[in-house]
Amino acid sequence: MISNIHLIGAGQTRFGELWDKSIRDLMEEATDAAIANSPCTALDIDLIVVSNMLAEVTNGQAHLSAIASSLLPHHPPAIRVESACGSGAFALHTAMAMLESGRARNVLVIGVEKMTDVSMETVASALMGAADSEQERPAGLTFPGIFGLIAQRYMHDFGLSREDLSLVSAVHHRNACANPFAQFRSEITPDAVSSSAAVADPLRLLDCSPISDGAAACILSTEHVNGVRVAASQIASDSLSIIHRPVITSFSATKDAAERALTEAGIKLKEIDVLETHDCFSIAALINLEDLGFCDPGQGINIYKDIFARRGDSGIALGVNLSGGLKGCGHPVAATGIKQVIDVAKQLQKTGRRYGLAHNFGGAAATCGVHILENVS
Amino acid sequence: MISNIHLIGAGQTRFGELWDKSIRDLMEEATDAAIANSPCTALDIDLIVVSNMLAEVTNGQAHLSAIASSLLPHHPPAIRVESACGSGAFALHTAMAMLESGRARNVLVIGVEKMTDVSMETVASALMGAADSEQERPAGLTFPGIFGLIAQRYMHDFGLSREDLSLVSAVHHRNACANPFAQFRSEITPDAVSSSAAVADPLRLLDCSPISDGAAACILSTEHVNGVRVAASQIASDSLSIIHRPVITSFSATKDAAERALTEAGIKLKEIDVLETHDCFSIAALINLEDLGFCDPGQGINIYKDIFARRGDSGIALGVNLSGGLKGCGHPVAATGIKQVIDVAKQLQKTGRRYGLAHNFGGAAATCGVHILENVS
Repeated sequence: MISNIHLIGAGQTRFGELWDKSIRDLMEEATDAAIANSPCTALDIDLIVVSNMLAEVTNGQAHLSAIASSLLPHHPPAIRVESACGSGAFALHTAMAMLESGRARNVLVIGVEKMTDVSMETVASALMGAADSEQERPAGLTFPGIFGLIAQRYMHDFGLSREDLSLVSAVHHRNACANPFAQFRSEITPDAVSSSAAVADPLRLLDCSPISDGAAACILSTEHVNGVRVAASQIASDSLSIIHRPVITSFSATKDAAERALTEAGIKLKEIDVLETHDCFSIAALINLEDLGFCDPGQGINIYKDIFARRGDSGIALGVNLSGGLKGCGHPVAATGIKQVIDVAKQLQKTGRRYGLAHNFGGAAATCGVHILENVS
Repeated sequence: MISNIHLIGAGQTRFGELWDKSIRDLMEEATDAAIANSPCTALDIDLIVVSNMLAEVTNGQAHLSAIASSLLPHHPPAIRVESACGSGAFALHTAMAMLESGRARNVLVIGVEKMTDVSMETVASALMGAADSEQERPAGLTFPGIFGLIAQRYMHDFGLSREDLSLVSAVHHRNACANPFAQFRSEITPDAVSSSAAVADPLRLLDCSPISDGAAACILSTEHVNGVRVAASQIASDSLSIIHRPVITSFSATKDAAERALTEAGIKLKEIDVLETHDCFSIAALINLEDLGFCDPGQGINIYKDIFARRGDSGIALGVNLSGGLKGCGHPVAATGIKQVIDVAKQLQKTGRRYGLAHNFGGAAATCGVHILENVS
């Protein structure tokens, strides 16, 4: 099946600590930008899919589908999808099915999160809802704790050094400097990462993506075309808790979703020139490159060493998190998957390259969504 | 488009205060029953859609998609959908699109809620997330308060008496006596409703659906057939807050979804013989009958008077909430929409009648989903 679904419009807010904006304001700003950048009017939107994880806890607000619908004058039907930090990819996947079923022709997908209105304890606890509340939460684990365990095991198995791991966030911050929507537009040295405050050994503060507000929206269409086609949309699941997995230094949901996405697109991995991947913690970026197949297990750091040494992405085919990734851009959790797809599309259009991949997961990759975009302009 | 999607399996837990069961236990019990009652094995399920509203708050658990996936040995992809108390219908609608798109052939839809593990204040506040947290919550409104305002206005406009309104819950309780899964299997008199504790004037305790635990699951399929076909699946949205609506004694989302569902099914309303409708509060049942088109505005009570007088549904074509509805069965909010469809299917198969309709809404019908089932056996 060759998808005739095109990404015909996109917009986002800045990501960051946006004290002066409500969750509705964020949704509206991203929506207005997406429609303004598309060949549609608001009235052409016949369905909305909202991606949100935390608003019940952080904003006392469920039922964001109804808020989304209220943003447009004709109140189109709207659905909310949640899959923790992977919500964005799952919302996009739902939108794809709605288009493929013929039930809609122009679907607005909005990812939004307003995380800074509550205490750090509240948001950390709410994020822990992405893990297993019966088995991991009672052990005192937080998400930095879970990825700290994963990093410990990875360093033990593959001999990764603390100094090398610090290259990951340094690259992401450097990339973010060019992104006007990024939360952190400042370079940091690897030494600064290594010497930042300890969070969950061996992870330091600057290994961790931040708490962010923000929204991103895009329009997928079977009615209009433009230069970017969605060549594949796949989702996969794994055990929710890491305690039920045979290994924790590799995520099977990523492998499953990516393999099926490449099959759906009918391409080989080497044809992917642009990648946005889910670096919720620095260690995740390395595991992701390996699970996606860009390198062997334990070798992810070599790609970052190469990128860091070259200071920029010109001359290498594989641009990784050119937007700044979750660490540099910020991570309003359910907006991230939408933002990734928008950034992949931008990079394809800017560079003229053909294929890009967006990789978004929830929890410790208990769920994962992969989208492949094709530049057809 | 004639849907070839069949409801091929269904199961549910009892609804009630299920202190000894976790949210995972509830999902598992309903899932096992649905698979056991279908021509499928677990391995035939290629996608799961989970309907849940409250677990982030009531159970500290988001990411129910990953829990659902873990219930089956092959960990199929899973998505969570939320649209407040209308989540069930929206999950079914999402499953329909996944089947119609060809992305799945056997979709398990699980609705679940575990509401009794937290204080009444916590659950009441969480439910208020279905309303507008910027505009209605700060006014001190709760959901009984919102429907109390609606009931006040309805009684003013149409002259409905408090005594007549009490027939609604009496009928639902009577119906629930025959339902082994119902929370309240006991008859109540209209006088008992009228004299129960005041909650939000004019609504009394026995006008209100209860706080409930429970799960319901069904399997929709394009691969297998059985006697019940999904003839229509439609969703609609309205303003989230009642303050933005020209009238509050009628819900436009119900009208929109029902009108489109009848068109999709290619039938007239008079062909519907079985109805499960969203009686979160007694007044809602009357408004729903009117919005669905079974009677004129202000006349809904006449249908209940007729049903009450006949003591049972034999001899009348339109069975209303024969399961007991939300009041009699209980209302584990995101499970309700799934349970309604299961009950409509059961009633069609039991009576041999052809068409039944399930009507499920979120909030004060800010979102609404309507499904029409056809008995093709």
